[in-house]
Amino acid sequence: MKKAVVLLSGGLDSATVLAVARRQGYQCHALSLDYGQRHSAELQAAQRVAEQLGAAEHRLFPLGLGALGGSALTDPAIQVPQIATEGIPVTYVPARNTILLSIALGWAEILGARHLFIGVNAVDYSGYPDCRPEFIRAFQNLANLATKAGVEGDRIQIHAPLIQLTKAQIIRLGADLGLDYAATVSCYQADPQGRACGQCDSCRLRAQGFAAAGLPDPTRYAQTQTKKHP
Amino acid sequence: MKKAVVLLSGGLDSATVLAVARRQGYQCHALSLDYGQRHSAELQAAQRVAEQLGAAEHRLFPLGLGALGGSALTDPAIQVPQIATEGIPVTYVPARNTILLSIALGWAEILGARHLFIGVNAVDYSGYPDCRPEFIRAFQNLANLATKAGVEGDRIQIHAPLIQLTKAQIIRLGADLGLDYAATVSCYQADPQGRACGQCDSCRLRAQGFAAAGLPDPTRYAQTQTKKHP
Repeated sequence: MKKAVVLLSGGLDSATVLAVARRQGYQCHALSLDYGQRHSAELQAAQRVAEQLGAAEHRLFPLGLGALGGSALTDPAIQVPQIATEGIPVTYVPARNTILLSIALGWAEILGARHLFIGVNAVDYSGYPDCRPEFIRAFQNLANLATKAGVEGDRIQIHAPLIQLTKAQIIRLGADLGLDYAATVSCYQADPQGRACGQCDSCRLRAQGFAAAGLPDPTRYAQTQTKKHP
Repeated sequence: MKKAVVLLSGGLDSATVLAVARRQGYQCHALSLDYGQRHSAELQAAQRVAEQLGAAEHRLFPLGLGALGGSALTDPAIQVPQIATEGIPVTYVPARNTILLSIALGWAEILGARHLFIGVNAVDYSGYPDCRPEFIRAFQNLANLATKAGVEGDRIQIHAPLIQLTKAQIIRLGADLGLDYAATVSCYQADPQGRACGQCDSCRLRAQGFAAAGLPDPTRYAQTQTKKHP
């Protein structure tokens, strides 16, 4: 069975990617990076999803990105905004996907895996530069120059199966593969029980996705905030 | 003053790079990654070098690469070899420079720095794939696609000023810039006092470099092992 490293945040997108990789027959080594994100409920979700989808293993890699600051997702001093803004938002984590893919690449080399899966998405991507197809292509090029495997001609492939899908298409894809989205957490500021705020960008995109897909939304919202949810 | 992030391991090469960047007039933000290397004496050396060369700041970033295993430098189960072998050695840390540059890139974005310095060297490079000019070019290409700065047209540059120099040329360059190499540690298995083993690949290249440069070698060797040193 071909080995793959699958980046798994515990959110809706990466869970769908794991379901896709499993369906394609890969032996999946799921990797979650604890980069100081506020929503550690997401990491617990990653654990549930890895088990549910039969990953070969699930590893949590601590990465103290919070020490560098600079993002609302890792720096407690910056507030998560409730209104979507133009351009690149403050929830952008500097060089995030570059760092995540780099560590996944290191682990892939150790495992002898030649396939990396990541749930980036260029459609509903909130304006992050490292979610675009040209970024993925550039990383694949780098990976084949950077590694022993690449140098020896054993090509490394970066798979981004969601990159051209809308949130609704992603949700339908996962549902078709039997994924139970109740196990996932997307909210940027979920409470310790994994209940969503219903107000951040990520919650909004997720709720719109289920509505557009015509599927019931299994998201659990924090009680006080459900009332405010449009 | 232009800001730069300088990757500083505490070894001979990265210390020379910091000296070069300072001479070129950059405000230098030195970054050392503690990726579980056995020779933490190298990190203390980084601190000394950063102070000696007037870095604006020096930050230590903990990165638990040891958890992934796979290299003699981070995995205690793999022995550091005393004889140079053909091909890529076991001291290779999977995807190391990709990971180091990625984290440096994240910090550069936060600082608003557009310049990254790294001491890779393609001449005496021990066969590591991520020390070649094509790797550096590929990373620069990636950096400009991956980041807010790059997207907004504010080009990020990766500087690898040692890439085409021999170890002897690097040492002469540093000496010309007034760098005191006594502060640096290159050994893969230095003792807690920073004394070198004199037998690993890195010690050998360093000793040969000083000899070829015709300069006195200020390296402190561990007493019992100095005797064995050829």
